[in-house]
Amino acid sequence: MPEKIVNPSILPGFMELLPNEQILFNKMLDKIKNSYEKYAFLPIDTPVIEKSEILLAKGGGETEKQIYKVVKGDTDMSLRFDLTVPLARYVAMHFHELSFPFRRYHIGKVYRGEKNQKGRFREFYQADIDIIGNGELSIINDAEIPSVIYTTFKDLGFDNFTIKINNRKLLQGFFEYLGINNFHEVLRIVDKLDKIGIDKVERELLDIGVGKEKFEQIKNFIMFDGNNASTLTFLKELEIDNIHFQTGLDELKTITHYIEVFGVPKDNFKIDLTIARGLDYYTGTVYETFLNDYPKIGSICSGGRYDNLSEFYTNQKLPGVGISIGLTRLFYQLKEAGIISADDEELIKALIIPMENFLEPSIEISNKLRNNGISCQIYLEDAKMSKKLNYANKIKVPFVIIIGEEEVKNDVYTLKNMKTGEQTTNSIEEIINTLLAFK
Amino acid sequence: MPEKIVNPSILPGFMELLPNEQILFNKMLDKIKNSYEKYAFLPIDTPVIEKSEILLAKGGGETEKQIYKVVKGDTDMSLRFDLTVPLARYVAMHFHELSFPFRRYHIGKVYRGEKNQKGRFREFYQADIDIIGNGELSIINDAEIPSVIYTTFKDLGFDNFTIKINNRKLLQGFFEYLGINNFHEVLRIVDKLDKIGIDKVERELLDIGVGKEKFEQIKNFIMFDGNNASTLTFLKELEIDNIHFQTGLDELKTITHYIEVFGVPKDNFKIDLTIARGLDYYTGTVYETFLNDYPKIGSICSGGRYDNLSEFYTNQKLPGVGISIGLTRLFYQLKEAGIISADDEELIKALIIPMENFLEPSIEISNKLRNNGISCQIYLEDAKMSKKLNYANKIKVPFVIIIGEEEVKNDVYTLKNMKTGEQTTNSIEEIINTLLAFK
Repeated sequence: MPEKIVNPSILPGFMELLPNEQILFNKMLDKIKNSYEKYAFLPIDTPVIEKSEILLAKGGGETEKQIYKVVKGDTDMSLRFDLTVPLARYVAMHFHELSFPFRRYHIGKVYRGEKNQKGRFREFYQADIDIIGNGELSIINDAEIPSVIYTTFKDLGFDNFTIKINNRKLLQGFFEYLGINNFHEVLRIVDKLDKIGIDKVERELLDIGVGKEKFEQIKNFIMFDGNNASTLTFLKELEIDNIHFQTGLDELKTITHYIEVFGVPKDNFKIDLTIARGLDYYTGTVYETFLNDYPKIGSICSGGRYDNLSEFYTNQKLPGVGISIGLTRLFYQLKEAGIISADDEELIKALIIPMENFLEPSIEISNKLRNNGISCQIYLEDAKMSKKLNYANKIKVPFVIIIGEEEVKNDVYTLKNMKTGEQTTNSIEEIINTLLAFK
Repeated sequence: MPEKIVNPSILPGFMELLPNEQILFNKMLDKIKNSYEKYAFLPIDTPVIEKSEILLAKGGGETEKQIYKVVKGDTDMSLRFDLTVPLARYVAMHFHELSFPFRRYHIGKVYRGEKNQKGRFREFYQADIDIIGNGELSIINDAEIPSVIYTTFKDLGFDNFTIKINNRKLLQGFFEYLGINNFHEVLRIVDKLDKIGIDKVERELLDIGVGKEKFEQIKNFIMFDGNNASTLTFLKELEIDNIHFQTGLDELKTITHYIEVFGVPKDNFKIDLTIARGLDYYTGTVYETFLNDYPKIGSICSGGRYDNLSEFYTNQKLPGVGISIGLTRLFYQLKEAGIISADDEELIKALIIPMENFLEPSIEISNKLRNNGISCQIYLEDAKMSKKLNYANKIKVPFVIIIGEEEVKNDVYTLKNMKTGEQTTNSIEEIINTLLAFK
């Protein structure tokens, strides 16, 4: 016996699920994985611990403050805080072993020592895809990404969502045309529009020296609301003579066309000039995705085009485009909003309950079900029948098969549907077919 | 441009795979997962970082030396070094929300700062199952575990393997009968038999004061070789009047019978009295599993019965039985031994290659394939046909579909099997059926 009991608990800011919730979580993860694979993204899995010099090569910003250091021996090590930096390192390191365009997906845990607050997690799953070119990468890839987003969220059971797209070159050209030099600073403020509203955006822009008149021009620009065709017309008719603006507009026009060719319905994507993506490594197309019935959840899938993935690890120029789903946060928010529920999640199809002295035939039945790929459990403990049935209720198993003298003698079994209470008498083959067909 | 390029590398002792190897690894992982689920084990996923006081509650031994500490703020945190301690904490913490017997599987990464040597990893996947009882747990569960091992390795493609079983109570009783008091010390030495041979075991046992005569008795006992029936007869005929010995023998007899009822062929399991399992928390049945054609690989799946899973976190008595597969090490060894190869692993079924100006119909074909669940990729870059075909060869895609004027005009497409070189002309429906049927 131990001298002292340690109170069983986990660290704050970490998500841990009960099995029925975990089943639901895993189903979502599998659907994302299957969708990514359908689009020919290949899996990679990188170490959770990396050298700190790799993870912090870019340096600065929030990252360094949020990083978890790992201590063992002399090497300066840390836990990864996203899957993009490991990808940049991976592609630079394995450059000669990979074929380009290189399409990879990566679903794994990342770590950020964020302030502890509801709905924020310090350990969370990201599910990323990226397409990396060697030297260059066709703009058509930017149009394929929304198709992956669309298919993934359809597969997850959603219909009413909008993939909002914009282009950083377009914004850069527009700000240059206005004579604004601190492009990234302005972008970071505009990017907060959704959270803080236009009045606060105005105050912040005025604070950094953007004049009232220019603010009004910015406001009229980003707040333009129309369908994709009218937005493109609006942009064209501005007749802004700036190379970034025109390149951005061309790209936006091209991908708007090809997104439709890729089969994304018009209702599910929209040019939105407010989408800025604060991260300063995006250089072209940017994406955010919203559930229209739950705007408070914010973007559920974001990403964009960047010019140079691995600049800190190689001189190879590696442009790319990609997106990320923050699965842990998404799962938490969908659960909180009552959009998903683990109540009906089941993995086990049947519980086999042996009557006294009928353990062996029960095991033989379980063998037959499992040989047919059916997940089932035998109640192996000595207990009264009431306790066994109570267990079946508690684990919410959809079917129960009770095995006793009559059943074995006649080789006919009673399958009880635990939800409807319905009981049917079946041969073992019929039971197998019923369970295989269930759900 | 960054001022300085950081050499892209990972930490020593960490495994990182190229995509085709990762596909193979993931397939193995999925097969293990599916097998575990067939046996009604429920998934859990616990934080990789835990409070050090949780992970080190037991204390002592190698564990503390190998642990990775995590630094962020004031809390003493570490990375988990196995999945058993997190399970013990999980069951104690969620005791009132779980139903017992509680069957869980957990596949995840664990961390051990082991000495850096070939085939040893500091980050590795474990794939564990355990059945936990509340207060007590039927011995029949011990007989079901080998059935899970058997099915799992069959599903992984193996035939010639042996699950070796023994019982710690039996060994304890035998050593008590010999008058040996330092039971655990003797067990740890006997456990090394496989690695160091009988001569070194003898030397080590003599060194700790086991006399020559007793060593001979131990040797005759553990080295007994026969089929299960003759081993059980041999044990019975020893007529050892010791409660642990007799309980162990009864358990061994029971599970030997039931393992067969659970459908494990006689060729695939065997009582082996040398199996000791050094870990001191095992208290009954113990398992190790060997590939008979590759004895050097050692045990590929081990585990056993224990009396009290969560004694450091709760006063509840929680006996259990479980096993663990060290997947990263297993994968590495199978690859090194040439038993598995990533050469033929493919995830993408087809590469669609557009001729100049035939991008749109190519995208439309890809939509049709993907809507049918077929993984395919379009070559989207501007390039000469030779470069496109070269890419198809490099990514080892099984089929290529070239889309040009003729194809679109006639709505008939050429499917090229890249392995056989065979080309067939098909409607899109025929292509879908061929690709769905492939492999």
